[in-house]
Amino acid sequence: LGCGKVKRNAAPRVTHPRPGIVAVDADCGFAHPAIDLGFESLLPAARSQGIATLVIRNSYNCGVLGHHTDRIAQSGLLGLGFTNAPASIAPTGGVKPVIGTNPVSLAAPDGQGGTSLLIDQSASVVAKSEIMKKARAGLPIPEGWAFDPQGRPTTDAAVAVKGLMAPAGGQKGVGLGLIVELLAAALSGATLGIDASPFSGTVGGPPKTGQCFIAIDAGAASGNAFAERLARLCAAISDQPGTHLPGSRRAANRARAEREGVAVDAALLTRIRELA
Amino acid sequence: LGCGKVKRNAAPRVTHPRPGIVAVDADCGFAHPAIDLGFESLLPAARSQGIATLVIRNSYNCGVLGHHTDRIAQSGLLGLGFTNAPASIAPTGGVKPVIGTNPVSLAAPDGQGGTSLLIDQSASVVAKSEIMKKARAGLPIPEGWAFDPQGRPTTDAAVAVKGLMAPAGGQKGVGLGLIVELLAAALSGATLGIDASPFSGTVGGPPKTGQCFIAIDAGAASGNAFAERLARLCAAISDQPGTHLPGSRRAANRARAEREGVAVDAALLTRIRELA
Repeated sequence: LGCGKVKRNAAPRVTHPRPGIVAVDADCGFAHPAIDLGFESLLPAARSQGIATLVIRNSYNCGVLGHHTDRIAQSGLLGLGFTNAPASIAPTGGVKPVIGTNPVSLAAPDGQGGTSLLIDQSASVVAKSEIMKKARAGLPIPEGWAFDPQGRPTTDAAVAVKGLMAPAGGQKGVGLGLIVELLAAALSGATLGIDASPFSGTVGGPPKTGQCFIAIDAGAASGNAFAERLARLCAAISDQPGTHLPGSRRAANRARAEREGVAVDAALLTRIRELA
Repeated sequence: LGCGKVKRNAAPRVTHPRPGIVAVDADCGFAHPAIDLGFESLLPAARSQGIATLVIRNSYNCGVLGHHTDRIAQSGLLGLGFTNAPASIAPTGGVKPVIGTNPVSLAAPDGQGGTSLLIDQSASVVAKSEIMKKARAGLPIPEGWAFDPQGRPTTDAAVAVKGLMAPAGGQKGVGLGLIVELLAAALSGATLGIDASPFSGTVGGPPKTGQCFIAIDAGAASGNAFAERLARLCAAISDQPGTHLPGSRRAANRARAEREGVAVDAALLTRIRELA
């Protein structure tokens, strides 16, 4: 707010260009109120149309993408989410970044106001915030996480922050990141990762990146077979020793935090108190 | 057809449970006529609703997934596609397969009846057909492509065919394959990969797997910004030496094949002639 990355008193505006399309201009404010506003139209549209999409432009980092798809699932719909970020991944064979760490998320409703399965994964081997945490702590990063600005492997977190993120699965990670870029930025009319200012730091003004959500009435599409298929697929995973369902650790951690409180690093808490 | 994997004279049936949902029961026939039938309703629904989905159950292997999304893009809409397959990938930490090599595809329209960008990639490091080709030729496979039935790395193609496929990017490939399974099988009411008979061979009857397609009016969603964003993103990739746009090699190969004909392995041609 102080440096103008996020506009204070932003007034997000919603339009409904087609029965199945909701578009929100976030007016360079935080992503969350724009998403809240969009969901007010997205969820009823998906219920009546069977499928609907919410696209958001002139937005900011939406934080944990799965938090938002989780809300779609809690409303009884299947939720997909995509969000773009300043470019940090180079195309296969190249050294200039063209896409961000661009995550995708799916949340599957359990039919009782909760979420059975929550997938939320970036196109990179790790989220960029993992590398920034290491850089702040002066620690090295494992091989395979990132490259230097010339595209050479590095374990120096400070170099990696200024370099390139490694895509998960090589060219498959690039492909997935491109799909997310096309949905979250091109389809929404937001700013591409190659043209976006950084989320962090103080320079460059608002990144104006975007989000895309798709909500689907899974019962209507599947002839009411969805819930049974989902339960059987989840059981095939969780019945195997050594495995866990995507999202189950996060759900367990949240339940624990609600019970026992949240452990916060003392230095971070001091920083937050100083800012406040 | 001979062994009953695919039903002769199948009669696909289409329903339209919501304005944005088209559902086709492929009646255990080939996937292609079911997809053709569904596209007749999907494309107009996406134009009027802004977004629509086509789900197909009791289907078969749809071949190259990108062939179908390409048709959506040629109609001027953004196309997404998902299809499931008999289970061959184990969840992270497990050794029993729960999902197939489940590909995802995106095709972006160029606004002139063609396709600018075509992404089509499996959740595995390579498509299973690559390993079957090596096994038939008695050749080894590179490390990292597959595991034996106990989950140990193998370079023996014949062992790999009976074992597990390696997911691209480890748990990220598993996550992507799960997203595809939920859309192509659970959302469509098709048979999950864990319950599907093999596509090849003669036993087990029809696999009854599924497909899901989503078509979106990208111009309407983006306030007509989509075409400019897409062109700029494509240029950022193709302007770099050593890179190529996803789908561009396939398009070039197709143009060459239309000009010069298709080279077919002599043994395969003999086999086809014997079958005919």
